[in-house]
Amino acid sequence: MTESERTARAALSRLFEPQDAAGLALVQIAGAEDALRIASGALAAGAELEREMSRLLDENSQGSGWTGLAIARKRWAPRVPDLAPARDLATMQRLGGRLIIPADELWPRQLADLGLQEPICLWWRGIEQELPPADKSIALVGSRDSTSYGSAVTGDLAYSLAQRGFTIISGGAYGIDAHAHRAALAGNPSGSLPTIAVMAGGVDRFYPSGNEDLLRAVANQGAVLAEVPPGSAPTRYRFLQRNRLIAALASVTVVVEARWRSGALNTAHHAETLGRAVGAVPGSVHSANSAGCHRLLREGGAVCVTDAGEIAELASPSGEALPEVRAGRAAVQDGLTLEDLILLDALPLRTTSSVEKLTAVAGLSADSVRAGLGRLGLLGLAESHGGGWKRSGTAG
Amino acid sequence: MTESERTARAALSRLFEPQDAAGLALVQIAGAEDALRIASGALAAGAELEREMSRLLDENSQGSGWTGLAIARKRWAPRVPDLAPARDLATMQRLGGRLIIPADELWPRQLADLGLQEPICLWWRGIEQELPPADKSIALVGSRDSTSYGSAVTGDLAYSLAQRGFTIISGGAYGIDAHAHRAALAGNPSGSLPTIAVMAGGVDRFYPSGNEDLLRAVANQGAVLAEVPPGSAPTRYRFLQRNRLIAALASVTVVVEARWRSGALNTAHHAETLGRAVGAVPGSVHSANSAGCHRLLREGGAVCVTDAGEIAELASPSGEALPEVRAGRAAVQDGLTLEDLILLDALPLRTTSSVEKLTAVAGLSADSVRAGLGRLGLLGLAESHGGGWKRSGTAG
Repeated sequence: MTESERTARAALSRLFEPQDAAGLALVQIAGAEDALRIASGALAAGAELEREMSRLLDENSQGSGWTGLAIARKRWAPRVPDLAPARDLATMQRLGGRLIIPADELWPRQLADLGLQEPICLWWRGIEQELPPADKSIALVGSRDSTSYGSAVTGDLAYSLAQRGFTIISGGAYGIDAHAHRAALAGNPSGSLPTIAVMAGGVDRFYPSGNEDLLRAVANQGAVLAEVPPGSAPTRYRFLQRNRLIAALASVTVVVEARWRSGALNTAHHAETLGRAVGAVPGSVHSANSAGCHRLLREGGAVCVTDAGEIAELASPSGEALPEVRAGRAAVQDGLTLEDLILLDALPLRTTSSVEKLTAVAGLSADSVRAGLGRLGLLGLAESHGGGWKRSGTAG
Repeated sequence: MTESERTARAALSRLFEPQDAAGLALVQIAGAEDALRIASGALAAGAELEREMSRLLDENSQGSGWTGLAIARKRWAPRVPDLAPARDLATMQRLGGRLIIPADELWPRQLADLGLQEPICLWWRGIEQELPPADKSIALVGSRDSTSYGSAVTGDLAYSLAQRGFTIISGGAYGIDAHAHRAALAGNPSGSLPTIAVMAGGVDRFYPSGNEDLLRAVANQGAVLAEVPPGSAPTRYRFLQRNRLIAALASVTVVVEARWRSGALNTAHHAETLGRAVGAVPGSVHSANSAGCHRLLREGGAVCVTDAGEIAELASPSGEALPEVRAGRAAVQDGLTLEDLILLDALPLRTTSSVEKLTAVAGLSADSVRAGLGRLGLLGLAESHGGGWKRSGTAG
């Protein structure tokens, strides 16, 4: 039964554009196999089914575009003659890949958070291995025309996160995406899955062509995924839909560099909608490629992230992956009382000063000065010479 | 009566270190003149006064350090012989300055937000003119060892804010402070007060000496203020206390550049405590001089600010000073429905495509394709040639 469902979903992924609300509602209510029969016109649908679809779409706030099954069928009809799921599955097998569906063990459970927008299936190029759960996955996304700053930061973050055992999710594009995949491949210490590229078009073709070698390496060591079948062109619409998959696979989406208007912000908004953490890397206010990150920090719920530790912290807010403690070099005088700080300020650096003189300079009683000098002495901040006092640790 | 109060406050500002809670409570309860008599030992204080002081300090969460008036008097006693308020006032007059007290018309009303921590008086070097209210004042603060990035951003922000009629408040130090004052002086369009330097030491001396010319210019066109009397050294304690005045004078405190540990963060915390807005300028994650700003963005309630418009917006959240609308170059396709976006993606750039072919490529019914082509045509995004359709605006 799973295999016939797999074949049905393979066909449906060609029939429906990603996130076709009516199609996804039909699958949820009728199951994939009957959904395919109904969508392709081989099986009639009763009024009850249509009412159920309408109800489900309303529940998911998708009811506004719903104009009935007949209209949806007219939309799907032109593609029915092109359906060839067995051919598509064979193509994937030849490429060393497979198709996974929600019923599979290997299906990433975190995609269920997409609700009705969960993809029908995933076309997967790469060796069969366990895909990481959300809390081990971090999306790094950003501009295609990355600056040297963005490239360097992406490389540092991806390498360091991969070293910590995180899988880096990105979109396989030029710029930030490519740097993220490449550094993750380099940083992966063991046999765990270093990086996943989620494509907007079919995984039979490595797109863009300039990233062909990189994406081949991602497929060999990681995974290349898409919800659209082999041969599908990466249209703008599919890029926007693909972004929801990147956001849903990861527990944290980090925008490293993005212009004021950028597809990476779309991924960040998907992550926010899913209740996932969003990080934004700050940069120069003079760099147009950081304007989108700063926009997220101002307008969105994005957290300012500057290193891998801060990102890992977002991935497990429970504290499992606390960032290394920043070497803050706490100055010893930080713990002083106000009076002792005033006294310390009053102590000369080179010559010594009498208690009497210190009372006037510091504006403290003689008792307070004597007690304070004792405390500062214990801390190694003051020392006495021939009845006078000076600061410690300075030439005298 | 005001003049005798002025003289008393001049003396008290030498007797008490800034924010001496017991001293400030004494002034609030007994008035400045009797407070001076009591503090200097010329007048005895009853048990009732001491109880009132204790109550007031408790109300202001300052009761913990309170050990009674006798101990406080011992702290003040060593400075009593040095009191010479008439000499201090004459010094200020000779320098072309004055002392203002809360009873004066010229007193900045926003300092009342400090409550018990409101300074006793302000020593003011510069011409007599109205000091700006909080909503016309913006504090720009940051590292002494500013980078070229921090210097450039500070200059841009201060110049542009001065041009908009804001007064720039800073601390007269090297680095960010100096750039802020300098650019404000340059950017001031009219006769309004361009910039105020709030000093940690006495205003008789321009400190640090490398900023002498700059601070002289600030005094000539703006104002140089301090709560400590002439001749006071700028101790570390006084720097920390001075920061509360910068934060209280301005409606917004912006940290342009700051290390992980920095006095500028202290000013930001004062501003937060006062309920004032805090802005932080983002920078490179590789710059130690931006680490403090990023820390504020992560930990504090700081808002990411990248230009003068965003800062002006914080100064008047009611919308009076809305930032210029960012030239977002909204693409015409942003308003398209999903179906039309899919159709637009399916349209060839160079050759034309038939409606029938478009139905298959786009996965839309023929009716939808025809209606969509009509809409795209009206928007100038699609055009027909000999029965076929292509995208508009591209060579064909």
